[in-house]
Amino acid sequence: MLLTRSRVLLSEFIGTMFLLIGVMGSGIMAERLSPSDSGLQLLQNAAATTGVLIAIISIFGTISADFNPAVTVASWLLGYRQRSEIIPIVIVQIIGGCVGTVLANIMFDLDWFQLSEKTRSGANLWLAEVVATVGLLLVVFSLLRTKRSNHIPYVVGAYIGAAYYFTSSTSFANPSVSVARMLSDTFAGIKPSSVPMFILMQIFGLFLAAWVIRFLFSKPLVD
Amino acid sequence: MLLTRSRVLLSEFIGTMFLLIGVMGSGIMAERLSPSDSGLQLLQNAAATTGVLIAIISIFGTISADFNPAVTVASWLLGYRQRSEIIPIVIVQIIGGCVGTVLANIMFDLDWFQLSEKTRSGANLWLAEVVATVGLLLVVFSLLRTKRSNHIPYVVGAYIGAAYYFTSSTSFANPSVSVARMLSDTFAGIKPSSVPMFILMQIFGLFLAAWVIRFLFSKPLVD
Amino acid sequence: MLLTRSRVLLSEFIGTMFLLIGVMGSGIMAERLSPSDSGLQLLQNAAATTGVLIAIISIFGTISADFNPAVTVASWLLGYRQRSEIIPIVIVQIIGGCVGTVLANIMFDLDWFQLSEKTRSGANLWLAEVVATVGLLLVVFSLLRTKRSNHIPYVVGAYIGAAYYFTSSTSFANPSVSVARMLSDTFAGIKPSSVPMFILMQIFGLFLAAWVIRFLFSKPLVD
Amino acid sequence: MLLTRSRVLLSEFIGTMFLLIGVMGSGIMAERLSPSDSGLQLLQNAAATTGVLIAIISIFGTISADFNPAVTVASWLLGYRQRSEIIPIVIVQIIGGCVGTVLANIMFDLDWFQLSEKTRSGANLWLAEVVATVGLLLVVFSLLRTKRSNHIPYVVGAYIGAAYYFTSSTSFANPSVSVARMLSDTFAGIKPSSVPMFILMQIFGLFLAAWVIRFLFSKPLVD
Repeated sequence: MLLTRSRVLLSEFIGTMFLLIGVMGSGIMAERLSPSDSGLQLLQNAAATTGVLIAIISIFGTISADFNPAVTVASWLLGYRQRSEIIPIVIVQIIGGCVGTVLANIMFDLDWFQLSEKTRSGANLWLAEVVATVGLLLVVFSLLRTKRSNHIPYVVGAYIGAAYYFTSSTSFANPSVSVARMLSDTFAGIKPSSVPMFILMQIFGLFLAAWVIRFLFSKPLVD
Repeated sequence: MLLTRSRVLLSEFIGTMFLLIGVMGSGIMAERLSPSDSGLQLLQNAAATTGVLIAIISIFGTISADFNPAVTVASWLLGYRQRSEIIPIVIVQIIGGCVGTVLANIMFDLDWFQLSEKTRSGANLWLAEVVATVGLLLVVFSLLRTKRSNHIPYVVGAYIGAAYYFTSSTSFANPSVSVARMLSDTFAGIKPSSVPMFILMQIFGLFLAAWVIRFLFSKPLVD
Repeated sequence: MLLTRSRVLLSEFIGTMFLLIGVMGSGIMAERLSPSDSGLQLLQNAAATTGVLIAIISIFGTISADFNPAVTVASWLLGYRQRSEIIPIVIVQIIGGCVGTVLANIMFDLDWFQLSEKTRSGANLWLAEVVATVGLLLVVFSLLRTKRSNHIPYVVGAYIGAAYYFTSSTSFANPSVSVARMLSDTFAGIKPSSVPMFILMQIFGLFLAAWVIRFLFSKPLVD
Repeated sequence: MLLTRSRVLLSEFIGTMFLLIGVMGSGIMAERLSPSDSGLQLLQNAAATTGVLIAIISIFGTISADFNPAVTVASWLLGYRQRSEIIPIVIVQIIGGCVGTVLANIMFDLDWFQLSEKTRSGANLWLAEVVATVGLLLVVFSLLRTKRSNHIPYVVGAYIGAAYYFTSSTSFANPSVSVARMLSDTFAGIKPSSVPMFILMQIFGLFLAAWVIRFLFSKPLVD
């Protein structure tokens, strides 16, 4: 039991760490190598994020692979986790994400501690975070409820890679990631003052998604 | 029964909405970020469309995931839907698609209501829509008839991403999408006057595809 | 029996037609949209070819999905086809491929009949065609012999998309495709005089691959 | 027994050869075709590497598909290989990799023997190699231990494609590949003097990963 709990927390830690290494590191790399076209930067950032999501959800999927407080809370609301699990998992996700950003800074020879200056604010970006979060949770829980969890790594990867493009906020859709992305003043960073509204919108999306998922998938379906 | 019907319609609504958010939103994003190379714009648009198709067909595939009147009508012709289902589903697909385009406009801080000025016309584009629709229906129904429906999200995504490139019309292949793409004067838009011939060609492709599918897959095959 | 034979030939015809529409059409599109960077052109061409391969092998895989005389002949050498099937299938592949190229020309508003002026010749390109063909046949027959045929669409798509880059010839690896690509003087074309050596090298690769496959996979293995 | 041993060694030879053809060849192609944007070069190199990894792990996965001494040694540490297998396999991987690089040089009409002049050195790159190797081994052995080995080709491909971007070293993560990439003074090359520290870091990552894998996946789990 204690072993299981430790494994869950270690999985969430390493997984969220790798997620942020992937998001921030590929953003820095793309910004450096393709300075003249920001679309090309986002394409490289989105492709690398898709790849790292496929990897980390595959690695930790049989233990615990939320890497996202919105997913963890929805898991509780939809009956996949106990309430007592939430707080420790979310703490570990935030720490893991911050460690990941710092590692990305170090790997790319930047100051290990930084704060982003990139403002991401406005009603249209907030709407985008609601849309992005609803879509992400629909992917995860539709597959879980219909016993197709082996597809989750690929579909989440494809969804987020696309959502980087089809949402004006480039789809954070994850409170831990939103916090951790403050810590690097590079391509994928976000100014601390922009984070609270992003998280609020993600929480709003979470409740909206839970409502839709309950209506559409009220009883487990077979594939 | 009523619950099932509501779930089908809600799935077609949300799915088609997300499809248009994906197509239009990524088109706007790509146009803004990569102004100097239209191939790079189409590459980003195609990759994001592939991703959103994988996501929405995975999410709603166990309920109803046509998002396309050509698929819905072919489902009836090939014995997968009853005739009475068609009209309500198609209406919901059109509304969902239009809502998606409007949401994309709002997310990217554009006027919510617009009409595209982009003319897409000519015999060569019309031929392209026939080809694109035939290929799409072959993908969907070959997999359905051979009990490989779990592959549909990936293969439809791959097909449409490719068809953006190999058809001169960039492969609309979907009457609801054709209507909804009128409502944004951006990268992926289409002028209202160009839409009727696109839909006519898609209908022609639908009947051609149904004929081929009946010949090739007349009896269910096992994988 | 006659019905089965007709289905096999129609599948090989439509599939090879779509393969060439995909290869040539996406080449024309990429050349037009990204005139300033030929790497970006090849990237778009390779991605679209990967997508169309995933689609056509998925569609026709339960009937007949070689689209390539090298695969068809190897199928006979390795005991998956009868000798009498080869000639009609290869003829249909060549005709289907040529029809596909012509359709691509028409869709993109070019003269329907053209001959490519692009010379592709030299010992290093010939070596590349041997390497490309060996790899392709290893993919197809390793998966067939180990009962993983449901993976063939994805792995062939991934392989050819990569081989466009890692072989200096951009990996034709297919005699029918080599013939059909003569018929468009665009990005993916090949001058008729360059074709015979390409086909000769593909045949050499075919025998080399058959030898390796027999040694490595002499008895069917379970996955 | 001897036959099995020969098949294992031939698989590791051909597979590592194709891996290096893929990595080096696509690097040369991308460098030639996209001289003006090094991000675009890396994107093409990463996409092609992903594709070739999917292909070679699929082809040889039922026989032996390490292509990497770090994977081979970890297989022994984690109980999947006998100690006596390691040395011959590693030798064959190194030879196969070098042959692959030489073939890439020849295919692209370069001097067959070259030494790279590209220095890759510094504490931040060394950290990157540790991170890259840990992630790769987590992918491989988490899937093996949970009986999902049929996913390994896709997840390794996605991981390495992403890791090209999110690690500042572009993720060698493989001692044989590190040696073989010395032999071409092109995009993906590495100066011989930079290789020893890369390999040392990969070995460090290997032991770190083995420790984490033992803790997280100590008993086989069912999917």
